[in-house]
Amino acid sequence: MSEAEHSTLLSEQLATTTLSDAVQKHEFSDRVLISSIVGRPDGGEGLAGQRVRAGGWVKTGREQGKGTFAFLELNDGSSPENLQVIVGAGVAELSPLVATGTCVVVDGVLKVPPDGTKQRIELQVDKVVHVGPVDPAKYPLPKTKLTLEFLRDYLHLRSRTNTISSVARIRNALAFATHCFFQEHGFLYVHTPIITTSDCEGAGEMFQVTTLITDSQKLGKDLIKNGKIDYSQDFFARQAFLTVSGQLQVETYACAVSNVYTFGPTFRAENSHTSRHLAEFWMVEPEIAFADLQDDMNCAEAYVKYMCQWLLDKCLDDMEFMAKNYDKSCIERLKLVASTPFGRISYTEAIELLEDAIKGGKKFENDVEWGIDLSSEHERFLTEVKFQKPVIVYNYPKRIKAFYMRLNDDSKTVAAMDVLVPKLVVLHCRILEMGLPLEPYEWYLDLRRFGTVKHSGFGLGFERMILFATGIDNIRDVIPFPRYPGKADL
Amino acid sequence: MSEAEHSTLLSEQLATTTLSDAVQKHEFSDRVLISSIVGRPDGGEGLAGQRVRAGGWVKTGREQGKGTFAFLELNDGSSPENLQVIVGAGVAELSPLVATGTCVVVDGVLKVPPDGTKQRIELQVDKVVHVGPVDPAKYPLPKTKLTLEFLRDYLHLRSRTNTISSVARIRNALAFATHCFFQEHGFLYVHTPIITTSDCEGAGEMFQVTTLITDSQKLGKDLIKNGKIDYSQDFFARQAFLTVSGQLQVETYACAVSNVYTFGPTFRAENSHTSRHLAEFWMVEPEIAFADLQDDMNCAEAYVKYMCQWLLDKCLDDMEFMAKNYDKSCIERLKLVASTPFGRISYTEAIELLEDAIKGGKKFENDVEWGIDLSSEHERFLTEVKFQKPVIVYNYPKRIKAFYMRLNDDSKTVAAMDVLVPKLVVLHCRILEMGLPLEPYEWYLDLRRFGTVKHSGFGLGFERMILFATGIDNIRDVIPFPRYPGKADL
Repeated sequence: MSEAEHSTLLSEQLATTTLSDAVQKHEFSDRVLISSIVGRPDGGEGLAGQRVRAGGWVKTGREQGKGTFAFLELNDGSSPENLQVIVGAGVAELSPLVATGTCVVVDGVLKVPPDGTKQRIELQVDKVVHVGPVDPAKYPLPKTKLTLEFLRDYLHLRSRTNTISSVARIRNALAFATHCFFQEHGFLYVHTPIITTSDCEGAGEMFQVTTLITDSQKLGKDLIKNGKIDYSQDFFARQAFLTVSGQLQVETYACAVSNVYTFGPTFRAENSHTSRHLAEFWMVEPEIAFADLQDDMNCAEAYVKYMCQWLLDKCLDDMEFMAKNYDKSCIERLKLVASTPFGRISYTEAIELLEDAIKGGKKFENDVEWGIDLSSEHERFLTEVKFQKPVIVYNYPKRIKAFYMRLNDDSKTVAAMDVLVPKLVVLHCRILEMGLPLEPYEWYLDLRRFGTVKHSGFGLGFERMILFATGIDNIRDVIPFPRYPGKADL
Repeated sequence: MSEAEHSTLLSEQLATTTLSDAVQKHEFSDRVLISSIVGRPDGGEGLAGQRVRAGGWVKTGREQGKGTFAFLELNDGSSPENLQVIVGAGVAELSPLVATGTCVVVDGVLKVPPDGTKQRIELQVDKVVHVGPVDPAKYPLPKTKLTLEFLRDYLHLRSRTNTISSVARIRNALAFATHCFFQEHGFLYVHTPIITTSDCEGAGEMFQVTTLITDSQKLGKDLIKNGKIDYSQDFFARQAFLTVSGQLQVETYACAVSNVYTFGPTFRAENSHTSRHLAEFWMVEPEIAFADLQDDMNCAEAYVKYMCQWLLDKCLDDMEFMAKNYDKSCIERLKLVASTPFGRISYTEAIELLEDAIKGGKKFENDVEWGIDLSSEHERFLTEVKFQKPVIVYNYPKRIKAFYMRLNDDSKTVAAMDVLVPKLVVLHCRILEMGLPLEPYEWYLDLRRFGTVKHSGFGLGFERMILFATGIDNIRDVIPFPRYPGKADL
């Protein structure tokens, strides 16, 4: 069909449409969200004939019919799908519209395109309201496929790519799912502090927070006394750090209002350059008073299942994008985790299963014996080969877990658990049925001294969950602004 | 009625109760939430006869009937209301149970108490499962009324008080309401960075983040070159700070996925000792592409109304506590804000109204003339006296707002707005219809160079909103772990 025939057909459709099935204008701007058109079960067909204003950024554009039409694939981030937009030469100058990255706001009428196009609806424009142009010679993100590694140098623009905007929607969905899950179960969201004077895992891996050294002159002279920095002159009158975990602080609330969770940024000053570590990352840390390790496992399992089901229900289009481009099994994996009861084995049973596998001929690079920290190959064997579903391993040797976990009656193991899920990534749901008052803070001891109770919780690395869901390999691609040694752009 | 008669009556009730109206056990522990009993419309009466396990901390306890009974007011943080718990001497030793702050887990049967008590349901205990004792001689929070100022020295225990636990529930409710509001309106939650190398409001008020000075020995020797600290040796290979606002970074997402918000901690190293300032506080910052100041005002008004209505719907019991103890008009204020369209006046009109008032005899401490920054007394006059409802003031003189706001056609004012609400506290919804590419970052200029579009947003200080809702005076009492000069406990 020629462009002219196409146009005629569109005009005829316009004359016969009904307005009964209204598209909704966005409440806080004069445009509609593209998702409210292309995200409908009918692909937008039922909206044919409606007049709308759409805005977004051009994914791809081309002039056709010797410059009589421009076809634009427009995306506004509300959906992974684009809206096809058609602008005639009589409406606007076409060449500034077609460059990838151009922002346009357009008024027009929705039409069902002629047979043979893949779109089910398109927008025939009669007015171009705004153009935010792009000089293709200078734009760093051309239409060609770019590697995720390349995009890390363009944090301010990479959210315009299909992958990073899909990740943004999946990340948003998992964050909201997290809040909904805990709110539905009667947990209070507690904002634990970012700046802390409690050092729960050793200052070596902590970032220091200070107002002292912005003035290096002052630092050289007055601030060092007897070879040591005089922190009484610092903002908080003592040494302060960025938190590595909200766990200790959220416990003070668990011991008062019983069910709580924190969800916020945490920090590690580790000199790690791996694809699994960040200097700044987000953690979800629930803490449940009156609950033991069994309750804790129930909560962790329910939470992980809930997130998986949420993505299947609310982000299937983005998950399909991930399945097509990054990990073809990611949707099946979500379905498996959402629907199958997790395996639960003690650490001792896990070691026995690994030893049995070795007897059967299985080779591991790392030795297996009671007392080892399970390595990634061991965890993968358990969850991917042996169980083929998520597995919770509990009651770890006390030597390999934190000193403050509750010692079991066998005197050898502590009430700790990890949740292992299939695929490369593992959710180390760190433990904590608390019991022993060994923590060296007076305030922490007070929680045991006054009205003490058993409580348990876990920590879920939020980015790990996104890696698991999407199948993306590098943690730097699932957080908007990754921080790691030598890098803190923007 | 004697205790013995009371007991007999309870036994009779037990024999005739039905179990049709089951109380729900908490999914992740073996107890029920007290709110699921006392928070029912019938006050729990319909649950009479049910066997439950409850846990919590004793608010007040007393032995009665010459040691035959202990009466405990038990609270688990799920509700401002307590569950009355009755333990007979035959069940457990009573004296360790009654101290304020004691944690108990108890099994028993719910009963309707005899006429004349204020409770509509109470728990007759037949087994004490756990006691976390308190030595009243050592417990820092006795039953007597304590000032909020005193409690600030006991951050780890103050969440056990009625006020701080009520604030925790209100804060939780407002946080969840925030997410629900923006999610319902198609916004994506974006985690902007905490550690930043972009300095958007001047390094003077920023905290520095470093791994250099934990080793003061090293600092003395190698790190200072030519009198300046060599930041190439720091973790990020350059000077890094704690963010003062996520606005610039969230804009990069607004210019890609259109409707976004950030909700996270922000920091100011101001040496402020006021009741309105914190060094670490939470900000809500939406940013809407394709939206102008009018859209932005619509969004701010809808958001504030939504939060007020949410508290009325979900936290009325806590609001009643606040009304009784802190601010008798706080519920009426929420109703007013939720139901009344906000006034909207330009800055110029605001000045005229203030000048008219002065002509009419009103006295202000601060002079009124076009160009001044409105002071608190001016804002209060507008919202409390003149309009008696929230007022949005827009189009401020460019001199008193940030340089990057869009200049209006009059060349004198910028597209900025503040939302003023009645009562002491004011929500300074900071600005931002962006337009001028004045920001000194290349990456920020790229947002204007490539596919630019108008966008607008605002910043809401989350703690200010809690102060407004609760009527509490000091911002240090509405954040779990307040940070201010000289203070960063826990």
